[in-house]
Amino acid sequence: MTDTKPTIAVIGGTGDLGTGLARRWAKAGYAVILGSRAAEKAATAAADLASYATGPAPRGMANADAAMAGDVIVLTVPFASQVGTLDDIKAAVAGKLVVDTTVPLVPPRVARVQLPPEGCAAVAAQQRLGEGARVVSAFHNVAAHKLQVVDMALECDVLVFGDKAEDREVAIKLAEACGVRGLHAGPLVNSAAAEALTSVIIGINRTYKVDGASIRITGFGPAKQA
Amino acid sequence: MTDTKPTIAVIGGTGDLGTGLARRWAKAGYAVILGSRAAEKAATAAADLASYATGPAPRGMANADAAMAGDVIVLTVPFASQVGTLDDIKAAVAGKLVVDTTVPLVPPRVARVQLPPEGCAAVAAQQRLGEGARVVSAFHNVAAHKLQVVDMALECDVLVFGDKAEDREVAIKLAEACGVRGLHAGPLVNSAAAEALTSVIIGINRTYKVDGASIRITGFGPAKQA
Repeated sequence: MTDTKPTIAVIGGTGDLGTGLARRWAKAGYAVILGSRAAEKAATAAADLASYATGPAPRGMANADAAMAGDVIVLTVPFASQVGTLDDIKAAVAGKLVVDTTVPLVPPRVARVQLPPEGCAAVAAQQRLGEGARVVSAFHNVAAHKLQVVDMALECDVLVFGDKAEDREVAIKLAEACGVRGLHAGPLVNSAAAEALTSVIIGINRTYKVDGASIRITGFGPAKQA
Repeated sequence: MTDTKPTIAVIGGTGDLGTGLARRWAKAGYAVILGSRAAEKAATAAADLASYATGPAPRGMANADAAMAGDVIVLTVPFASQVGTLDDIKAAVAGKLVVDTTVPLVPPRVARVQLPPEGCAAVAAQQRLGEGARVVSAFHNVAAHKLQVVDMALECDVLVFGDKAEDREVAIKLAEACGVRGLHAGPLVNSAAAEALTSVIIGINRTYKVDGASIRITGFGPAKQA
């Protein structure tokens, strides 16, 4: 199966979420390319990632190069960096699937829902990239530090948003490779739900002194699409 | 404890969600008043509700009268009726706590997130009622038909939004009276998360052929506020 796995470029791959996802995918045998604004920083992180890899050796590159080299592009940057990063990689992601993980947190009030004028960060990403790229969104509600502990069982579901089922399916497979259930959660505009929920969860973590709350969709068993 | 329980007026109390909530609260010993646009319809529903009550006999009234007679006002009407109903009860709810359950579903595309210009239905309700009433929101993601089966264990959490913790606390107690965990989920604007999630859940019900999916916040044990 290894040869059917897409090469994953994790843009902003030296951050907390990028590191967690990259470790899980490397462990699952995927070829992972870490992107960062500085190629050297990405190379150092890729060397650290190597001990987790069961497949191809991870590589590190500047974001645009990583986006060029990847088959599937996963964007894991802070909201404030989303637009600039998208502009950096726009040419490189033409015709590719972009999995956006951006949550529109606006410091200092990150526990307050503050959705952008476009409705959600995922729609903003699609508008910024234009029709050349296909954007789905996912991984908004996974605790990054728990992802980083690659053997830790994660008690959560990943809601996957996108306008085409086959594109969502790719992200669902990537969620499963991380050890979590991925679910078809509707069109890209529905991403507002998971993005807003991130602020709610940050607040719950504070209010109840929880270390990494998340969500699970209840009421049915193992995921099986109709 | 019975005498410390507020009298609950369920506005739109003959609908699916109102019926489910009213049954659970009547069973828990609360005095319940059902409101409907037609007083006769409310009276009939109240008679049906009587067999569930372990406390005071349920009553049925026109919405405005129910709002006048209740201590806590719970609004359970379709999105399209929210504004009109708020205008009906506005004078009656001055100084009271209003628990809004409205989800901004816009037929026919109810599985598509379509948040209102105010950001969410709960903020729209607060703006419509003005400062005379205190609005919290809750019960967006509970399957109404499961609530109606009063002995059914519900595998879900109720996210409670509101700008004051003591107001949220009232709704959390009402959730617990229904047999579900209620959680402080932040200011009223955060209601966008649960309202949007309702469309996502409707879509998941369809896609996976589930009978009443819901959500649970994971990562911590029994709710205990810090």
